Amino acid sequence: MRTSPSLLSLTIDSAVLNLSNIADLSTLPDHIVIDLFLGTLRAGKLNERVLKLFIATGKDNVFSVIQALNIQVTVTPVLPTTIKDDEIDIVIGAIRSDLTSFMNEWRPMFSRFHIIIVKDPDLKEELKIPEGFNLDVYEKPDIDRVVGSSTSGLFSGYACRYFGYLVSRKKYIISVDDDCLPAQDPKGFLVDAVAQHITNLTTPATPFFFNTLYDPFTEGADFVRGYPFSLRSGVKCAFSSGLWLNLVDHDAPSQALKARQRNSRYVDAVMTVPAGSLVPISGINIAFDREVVGPALVPALKLAGEGKFRWETMEDIWSGLCVKVACDHLGLGVKTGLPYVRRIDRGDPIVSLKKEWEGVKLTEEVVPFFQSVRLSREATTVADCVVEVANAAKERLGSTDPVFARAAKAMLDWVNLWKLVGSISSQSPAV
Amino acid sequence: MRTSPSLLSLTIDSAVLNLSNIADLSTLPDHIVIDLFLGTLRAGKLNERVLKLFIATGKDNVFSVIQALNIQVTVTPVLPTTIKDDEIDIVIGAIRSDLTSFMNEWRPMFSRFHIIIVKDPDLKEELKIPEGFNLDVYEKPDIDRVVGSSTSGLFSGYACRYFGYLVSRKKYIISVDDDCLPAQDPKGFLVDAVAQHITNLTTPATPFFFNTLYDPFTEGADFVRGYPFSLRSGVKCAFSSGLWLNLVDHDAPSQALKARQRNSRYVDAVMTVPAGSLVPISGINIAFDREVVGPALVPALKLAGEGKFRWETMEDIWSGLCVKVACDHLGLGVKTGLPYVRRIDRGDPIVSLKKEWEGVKLTEEVVPFFQSVRLSREATTVADCVVEVANAAKERLGSTDPVFARAAKAMLDWVNLWKLVGSISSQSPAV
Repeated sequence: MRTSPSLLSLTIDSAVLNLSNIADLSTLPDHIVIDLFLGTLRAGKLNERVLKLFIATGKDNVFSVIQALNIQVTVTPVLPTTIKDDEIDIVIGAIRSDLTSFMNEWRPMFSRFHIIIVKDPDLKEELKIPEGFNLDVYEKPDIDRVVGSSTSGLFSGYACRYFGYLVSRKKYIISVDDDCLPAQDPKGFLVDAVAQHITNLTTPATPFFFNTLYDPFTEGADFVRGYPFSLRSGVKCAFSSGLWLNLVDHDAPSQALKARQRNSRYVDAVMTVPAGSLVPISGINIAFDREVVGPALVPALKLAGEGKFRWETMEDIWSGLCVKVACDHLGLGVKTGLPYVRRIDRGDPIVSLKKEWEGVKLTEEVVPFFQSVRLSREATTVADCVVEVANAAKERLGSTDPVFARAAKAMLDWVNLWKLVGSISSQSPAV
Repeated sequence: MRTSPSLLSLTIDSAVLNLSNIADLSTLPDHIVIDLFLGTLRAGKLNERVLKLFIATGKDNVFSVIQALNIQVTVTPVLPTTIKDDEIDIVIGAIRSDLTSFMNEWRPMFSRFHIIIVKDPDLKEELKIPEGFNLDVYEKPDIDRVVGSSTSGLFSGYACRYFGYLVSRKKYIISVDDDCLPAQDPKGFLVDAVAQHITNLTTPATPFFFNTLYDPFTEGADFVRGYPFSLRSGVKCAFSSGLWLNLVDHDAPSQALKARQRNSRYVDAVMTVPAGSLVPISGINIAFDREVVGPALVPALKLAGEGKFRWETMEDIWSGLCVKVACDHLGLGVKTGLPYVRRIDRGDPIVSLKKEWEGVKLTEEVVPFFQSVRLSREATTVADCVVEVANAAKERLGSTDPVFARAAKAMLDWVNLWKLVGSISSQSPAV
C-alpha cells in the first residue's frame, strides 16, 4: 500500500544522515525545513547542536513543532547591559523545607545572582538546598538578632521574605514564591523571569496616558497615534508584578468555586498600570527597585487566621496598595504582565475558605480607603508616604477592626526598622 | 538508505486511506494524531470534513501544524445569544472606490448583518461592491438631503463614516477601515472581529479597579485575589476599541522613522481602560453602543491639512477622548485589546509628514485639556457631556488655534443633529 518514495523524501532522508555537516538551514523553503525536522526527530538524531541549527532558521513552523512536541530548550539569559549582576538580590521565602527541585529548576536563571533565602520561622524542618548557588540563608535566630525577638513576629509565614528585603544591600530585588517554577512561553521556550523583570524595571513606565499597544518600550512596539510626544519619555519604573500560569492567584472562595480552573492563557504583554488606578498586586512573582520603594514593601496586614497558603494571606495586597499609592504620588511607575511563572497546585481551598472570608471582607474596607487616601506635598519619599498612609489608616480604619490598628503600627515600626537596618548602603552584609 | 517501515507507520498509512470511516480521533495519543495529520496532508487527503475531524480533537499540536502550514479554516461566527443580528449595523466609510476584496474577505463575518456604506463625498469614482450583502449606500446627495449642504462638509474623508452612525437605527455599531482585512490568531484561525466586539460590549467593564489577569469576563479568566467582591459585577461597557496587526496606527513621524516596522505581536487580551486614564482611541477598528455613546462619536477636529491617510487625521482621537471623558463621568466602561484586524500598507508616510506635524503639535494641547476638564452633575447623558466639553474647549482652547473653535462648534452642531436625525428610535430607515 506504500507509495514509492519521492525524490524530495529521499533527499531529506539523506540530509538527516548528514546534518553534522550542515551549518545553515535558513535558506531552505519552510516546508522542507519542517520535513527535515520531523525526519530528524523520527531518526532519533535530534541533539542540542541540531536543535540550535533548526532554531537558528527563525522559522515559525519549526517553533510550532518544538512547542507541539514539548521539546525543552535551554535558555541563556540575556540581561540589559546597564545592570550588573551584583545589583540584584533574589529573595526566596522558604515556606516548605525541601527547595531541591525549586532551586534546580530555576538554576539557569538564578545561578548568576546572589540569593537570599529566608526560612519561615514557623518551619521546624531543616532546609534542603542543592549545591552550586551563591546564597545566604536567614533563620529565626538571625531574624531575632537583627530586629529583636519582640519584632521578629512580623516575619512569620509568607512574610518571612520581607526580612530578605530588609537585609539586602542591592538596588533590585526579585522574589518568587517557592511553589512556582519557570513557565514556558507559547513557543515552548523557558521564560527567563529575572531578565524580564529587570527589563520591566529598567525601561520607563507610562502611567499618565494609556498606550493601546501595551508597553511601548517592548521590542517591536511603540507609541500609537495620538500619544503626546511630551509624555513619551515616560517615568522611572519602580515595581514589576509578574503573572502565573496553571494555578491562578485566586482568593479562597473563587478557588473553591472553580477548583479545576487553570490558567493557560499566555498574554504576551507588559503594561503600566495607569496613575490613579489601584491594583491588587500579588507577591507571588515580583521585582522592585529596593532603593526607591523598599519601605513600601511592608508586612503589615496579618489576618487573624492567616495560614500557609496564598489565599489565606493579605499582606501582599496591602503592601501592593501602599506601593501603588506612593508611586502615584511620587510620579513613579508600576508595571504588570510578563514574566509568567508556573504555579504548582497545593492546598485545599475548601479547608481555607473559612479563614479567607476574613480577608475578603476586609478588602471591602481596604480598597475604598486606599482609593480615597490623599498624601501631602511634604511626602517626598516612599518612606514619607508609608508614614502618612499608616496615620490615615489608624485614624480612618482603626476603629473598624483591630487588624487595621495593628497594620498601621507595623508600618510605622517598619519605616523605623528600614532606617535602622534597611537603608545602610554599604557593600557589606547587614548581619 | 530507507529504514523498513514500522508497524505504527503502516497503521497510520492505512488509517489515512480510511479516514472517511472515522468519526472521532480524540481518544488517540497526541503523537499518533499528529503523524496521522501529517500523513493525511502528504497523501493530499485533507478536505473540510477531515480538517474538522482533526480540529475536533482539540489537540494543541494539531492547531500548531494548522498554523505552521497556514491552513485556512472557515469560521462560523458564534455571537452571544442575547444580541439579535438586527441590533447591529456595520458601518464602512469608503475612502477607496473598489471594495471588492475588502467585502469578500469580510463576507464570513459581515454577511449576516445590515451594512451601511458611506462614500467619502470627495471620492469621484463609482463604488464597486460585490453582490450578496444586505446594505444601504449613502453618497453625497443623500448626505446633503439629510443634513443640508452647509453641514455636509463635516463628513468628508475619514469622517464620512460618522454619517452612518447618525442614520443608523441600531443599538450597536461596528466600524472597520476599508484598508483592513480579517486577521489570523496565533493558531491560524480567522478572527471574527464582529463576535469579539459584541462580546466586549455585552460583558461588563471594570474601570474602578485593575484586574491583573485582564478582562475577568473572558472565558477561563476571573478576578484575582484582592479584587473587592463589591466591584466584581462591573459596569456597562459602552465602547470597544480593537487593535491592528501588520501596519500599526502610528502618527506620521513614527511611521516615517520606522517605515519597515510591522506589528506581529498578537496579545490575547481584552481589558478595561481604568477610569481617569485617558487613551488615544483609534477609529480603525471599533464598536460601540450607539444608543448610549453615539453623540460622543463626533467628527469635530478637522486638521487644516487633513488627508486620506489615518496618520493625517485626528478626528477619531478627539472623539475617542470625548467618549472616554463622558464614560468616566457617567460610570460606563471602555475596553481595548481584541479583536485584531490586519491593516494593509498604503500611502507614503514621508509625504504625509508635513501635514501631520500639525496633528502632533495639537495633541500637546488636546491631552492636557481633556485630562483637566471637569463635567458637572447636571451632565447625565453623553449628549450633555459633549455639550459641556464643547463649551470648555471653546473657552480654554478657542484662542490657541482656530481649529479648536471650529471643533467646539462642530460638537454643538452634532448634538443638535443627533437629536434631530440620530435619535429617532423608529425601525424605519432615516432617509
